[in-house]
Amino acid sequence: MLVVMQARATSDQIRTICEKIEAMGFQTHTVEGSERYAIAVTGDLRGVDTCGLEELPGVQEIIRISKPYKLVGRESKPENTIVRFPNSDVTIGGEEFAIIAGPCSVETREQTMIVAEIIAATGAKLFRGGAYKPRTSPYAFQGLGVEGLKILAEVRERFGMLIVTEAVDAEALEAIEDYADMVQIGARNMQNFSLLKRAGRSPLPVLLKRGLSATLEELLMSAEYIMSEGNRNVVLCERGVRTFADHSRNTLDLSVIPVAKKLSHLPILSDPSHGTGKRASVTPLALASAAAGADGLMIEVHHDPDHALSDGAQSLFPEQFAAMVSQLREILPVVNRTLNTTPAKGRVSREAARS
Amino acid sequence: MLVVMQARATSDQIRTICEKIEAMGFQTHTVEGSERYAIAVTGDLRGVDTCGLEELPGVQEIIRISKPYKLVGRESKPENTIVRFPNSDVTIGGEEFAIIAGPCSVETREQTMIVAEIIAATGAKLFRGGAYKPRTSPYAFQGLGVEGLKILAEVRERFGMLIVTEAVDAEALEAIEDYADMVQIGARNMQNFSLLKRAGRSPLPVLLKRGLSATLEELLMSAEYIMSEGNRNVVLCERGVRTFADHSRNTLDLSVIPVAKKLSHLPILSDPSHGTGKRASVTPLALASAAAGADGLMIEVHHDPDHALSDGAQSLFPEQFAAMVSQLREILPVVNRTLNTTPAKGRVSREAARS
Amino acid sequence: MLVVMQARATSDQIRTICEKIEAMGFQTHTVEGSERYAIAVTGDLRGVDTCGLEELPGVQEIIRISKPYKLVGRESKPENTIVRFPNSDVTIGGEEFAIIAGPCSVETREQTMIVAEIIAATGAKLFRGGAYKPRTSPYAFQGLGVEGLKILAEVRERFGMLIVTEAVDAEALEAIEDYADMVQIGARNMQNFSLLKRAGRSPLPVLLKRGLSATLEELLMSAEYIMSEGNRNVVLCERGVRTFADHSRNTLDLSVIPVAKKLSHLPILSDPSHGTGKRASVTPLALASAAAGADGLMIEVHHDPDHALSDGAQSLFPEQFAAMVSQLREILPVVNRTLNTTPAKGRVSREAARS
Amino acid sequence: MLVVMQARATSDQIRTICEKIEAMGFQTHTVEGSERYAIAVTGDLRGVDTCGLEELPGVQEIIRISKPYKLVGRESKPENTIVRFPNSDVTIGGEEFAIIAGPCSVETREQTMIVAEIIAATGAKLFRGGAYKPRTSPYAFQGLGVEGLKILAEVRERFGMLIVTEAVDAEALEAIEDYADMVQIGARNMQNFSLLKRAGRSPLPVLLKRGLSATLEELLMSAEYIMSEGNRNVVLCERGVRTFADHSRNTLDLSVIPVAKKLSHLPILSDPSHGTGKRASVTPLALASAAAGADGLMIEVHHDPDHALSDGAQSLFPEQFAAMVSQLREILPVVNRTLNTTPAKGRVSREAARS
Repeated sequence: MLVVMQARATSDQIRTICEKIEAMGFQTHTVEGSERYAIAVTGDLRGVDTCGLEELPGVQEIIRISKPYKLVGRESKPENTIVRFPNSDVTIGGEEFAIIAGPCSVETREQTMIVAEIIAATGAKLFRGGAYKPRTSPYAFQGLGVEGLKILAEVRERFGMLIVTEAVDAEALEAIEDYADMVQIGARNMQNFSLLKRAGRSPLPVLLKRGLSATLEELLMSAEYIMSEGNRNVVLCERGVRTFADHSRNTLDLSVIPVAKKLSHLPILSDPSHGTGKRASVTPLALASAAAGADGLMIEVHHDPDHALSDGAQSLFPEQFAAMVSQLREILPVVNRTLNTTPAKGRVSREAARS
Repeated sequence: MLVVMQARATSDQIRTICEKIEAMGFQTHTVEGSERYAIAVTGDLRGVDTCGLEELPGVQEIIRISKPYKLVGRESKPENTIVRFPNSDVTIGGEEFAIIAGPCSVETREQTMIVAEIIAATGAKLFRGGAYKPRTSPYAFQGLGVEGLKILAEVRERFGMLIVTEAVDAEALEAIEDYADMVQIGARNMQNFSLLKRAGRSPLPVLLKRGLSATLEELLMSAEYIMSEGNRNVVLCERGVRTFADHSRNTLDLSVIPVAKKLSHLPILSDPSHGTGKRASVTPLALASAAAGADGLMIEVHHDPDHALSDGAQSLFPEQFAAMVSQLREILPVVNRTLNTTPAKGRVSREAARS
Repeated sequence: MLVVMQARATSDQIRTICEKIEAMGFQTHTVEGSERYAIAVTGDLRGVDTCGLEELPGVQEIIRISKPYKLVGRESKPENTIVRFPNSDVTIGGEEFAIIAGPCSVETREQTMIVAEIIAATGAKLFRGGAYKPRTSPYAFQGLGVEGLKILAEVRERFGMLIVTEAVDAEALEAIEDYADMVQIGARNMQNFSLLKRAGRSPLPVLLKRGLSATLEELLMSAEYIMSEGNRNVVLCERGVRTFADHSRNTLDLSVIPVAKKLSHLPILSDPSHGTGKRASVTPLALASAAAGADGLMIEVHHDPDHALSDGAQSLFPEQFAAMVSQLREILPVVNRTLNTTPAKGRVSREAARS
Repeated sequence: MLVVMQARATSDQIRTICEKIEAMGFQTHTVEGSERYAIAVTGDLRGVDTCGLEELPGVQEIIRISKPYKLVGRESKPENTIVRFPNSDVTIGGEEFAIIAGPCSVETREQTMIVAEIIAATGAKLFRGGAYKPRTSPYAFQGLGVEGLKILAEVRERFGMLIVTEAVDAEALEAIEDYADMVQIGARNMQNFSLLKRAGRSPLPVLLKRGLSATLEELLMSAEYIMSEGNRNVVLCERGVRTFADHSRNTLDLSVIPVAKKLSHLPILSDPSHGTGKRASVTPLALASAAAGADGLMIEVHHDPDHALSDGAQSLFPEQFAAMVSQLREILPVVNRTLNTTPAKGRVSREAARS
């Protein structure tokens, strides 16, 4: 930490600040500049509130140097985290590029099975579908709940795909642990710290979506919440941030991908469906995400998006999804990734997987 | 709703869309423009997903006209909502301007009583203090929990001020109902819909803070979640949004005040402490909020902010707070508000209040 | 400047960087922290590009400490700048609050005289009106040019108000110098550095509006461009920034006012007309600007806004303007400002003023 | 255009508004909804100010339907614009992907020739380098001016690459017309309408960069300014927008690419160097831009970025640039583009090119 003094700060003011900092257990090093003094502070400052200093007489500004996170940082773990699933060869964060696809919501058993069959046919190994839906309006479809989870479990049995689905609260998370393979924390709950702590005590890997106005550091701190409770299997996901731009629903921030991979060992996916909100933009941004170095994609697919109960306008038609997968297969080797889309050979029963 | 067609849309495409919309139970009215057709859709469209239409052949754009909210809108209730508290003459949203003041966190019994005494002496009638703190870092102080609530209840007994405190999850909310007079939903939980629904079933009034990147419509929809569960006592609060600007922690968006009051009957407060994050900016923006028409303020005060466990840099010193209250008393009559800061006459016991 | 090293930086890397910095003529001071080293750099770094350092092996981050401006900073001139006008008692930045009012555009001689009469009657002393209009569309009204300036000069003669008008390029600025008292640089030209330099060589004071996405530091650096060419009479103006918020045309950022006044000695005005884009929001935000400590206001007034050729929706009706001035007169003393709106006694001829 | 009435608007109010609109020469069509009326307005509304209507009694909101641009829109010209250069087979917007590379600034003749040789060796056909530099600080390097243009002309002679360089004002643009092949309008001048009009009268093609907070519609309107003066050779360029995100200098908004190509026939490039501001992010975002459908790239390359006078931290090293070109060559066929990087056979003299 660096305490930058005002140009007219007195030596008394500097002394007072140094004493205050040393009383907190840190070391101070005064540096004389051409215009002003600065006080470099050393010691383990992570988690320390510095706000008290900012307003002391003579202080211009406080500059933090240490990163506030520990477990998510690449400095604490230089090698990439590869998330593995029990009794399955599926990984996220390794050489293989992960595709998580499915409808926005589980609407009916029939609709879910139709979409699952389409996705399984392309060789994708992770299926998504919302049973609990966070909706802006209380009057919009809120998801089927446990009934939806049971449908997803059936997809797992029939098609051998692993299930990723969103938890909106502790109760939903508990139910999800009984039926799915990976729990998603949505953008609106990225700083629902109670839910993050609960996810940190889950046996399931967690897919953590970036909030609409979250900085990368805040995203990493939310992952730190999960990891600090013991769960080391966290996957980040860029899904678009909110800006002034109005040509897409959100602004998909692909520049976060190389920086996240530099700062953290955790895998990072991209969700161009929510990131753009427009079907015609999904495939271009999906290919762009792969080229930018994402570890995988989260994509909405619907066989009949015009009748979807949520987010139909951003869902790919089945044939668009298949075409996108073909293009990805060609692009990925350029960035040293592979796409293994051989359809899963047999059914994976939940019990077998857990055993 | 208006479906704007592309300039080269065919009459077949227009007919198909009209049929589709009519099958959903709405009426269509085709309007011929100089360049293109548009289809006006009428009927009660609130809560209807329109995304399916957007991608139909020939469609350029979908424009919604109806507001998606019902209960929070001024059209459903033209007169201002005035939130009242049992066995108390305190109101929010009426002629009297409301000041909710106190420390960011309840740190110790002693600190809380010192600050409470200072605030009670200015005549403020609502006391704030966090017992459950949503913190970006898992390693930062997370609040005293129920112990903190008990300290707040003691403030209530001793100084006759009503207690406002934040709930971070359903469990915290339940405890708060036993000790406080108003529950706060923080910015990071503005779209924690499970928590909103729970707050909607609470007997306490709810202070709902605007999320860091929430539009006014989204804030109103979150209030709608609470109201749709039966709780009509909702107070909105602007507390700064996230922008590119880096001279303050957030950008306090005072322009939301006159527009919120036009669209909704709910009261709206301003929180310049979190809104600016800088002590020296709090008073200027507090006065500005009153001048802009806010129904009240939420202000952090600390007797020793340099040692505060959270947000010290934005807390006013006691004498700054007193000076601010004096300035407010002069400004408010210009905008037809009053500031009744006669100290409460007697102690309000919780039981009396509830009876 | 502080060069923060990576946790695993080698001592060789640190030595190389120190040598490189010293070769540029600066001093280095290595500081050992618990996790990493940092190198504090001293010497006059203003105007130095540091980008080369950021990518050297072992470097984590470069943190600038010195402010990059000189002339605009309060450290170089502690007392407030008060802009004065020749042969006139009008000031901006002193105790008296400045009101600059008038129509968005000079449309016709008749319209301008009607509005000017209204404004003069309230005692305002500075008249605004655009003769050169920067419009998003090439097909929109672009202003009357020199004809408009002549009409403004007539307002000056008849009503004794000083004239403020916008220059969109060097040619316009030259013409404005012949007719007006203060030249405005609009938000879209805040970083038109050629125009800023030209304004720096003008005998007229300059009103510099903040760009739609300009940080405070960038605004101050643009003022520095003007001052570095010799013109010391610069007035800043907040006019709203662009954010995700959609309830107003821009987000008027009043928190910039106290911070600008802390960092710089230059006066700062607020423009709630462009800042909100909505008539009903102008008065609330005007009063808020005064309460927040602005040195004055820039306000659009039109006697017939429904027929205005530009920005009619944000122009106050004459009676609204008069009411706003009355409210300001009551609020300003609370923040130690006055509003002298005694109508000017006689006409100020340009020649007399210049002599 | 649609005039949405308030729920309680009277029939008198509706009649008044219809009469007002018809008096302006447009047709009105009243539509009755379940809650409110709306008035659909038809006729050629492009360039019409609607602000007057917004504030009339009974009006809730004005919704524009027509796009405000004509010449840039795909509806006025369905086929892609392909910009061609005289006496050269270089194109922008056709099947071939365009790479414009070079140093941020022309610093010295020697530096420029070294970089030019590196770039020519990769087969790139368009060379960039700034002779006029828009810099935030008046004390930073401002470019070599005409001397810089002469060095660029020499690059043209020696290496057969076409020259792209930025004009900061009318004077610079005039000089550029004598030496270069394409003129760039920078982000800070995107709404410098005087400069846009001047560029519209230039014989050179124009590269128009998106402003830091420009919507796509505003970018297109600025292109419309150029085209409306007669110059049809306009190329758009995404270069990052300003958001709250702090992990990169700007947020490169690749989602604008598919939408710009849908709305307009003009080519669109991407500039990941300015878009990210970080060398390590340039290649990932360059590949992503190609995958997203950009028509080309603008890339900064420097042989010795640590000593660059501007923007060194975002310049690729020569070997990084060569590697990036190789990766692009593999990715482009997947999105139906080619990269013809056969080095130009002979030198192109300016006179020959123009003849």
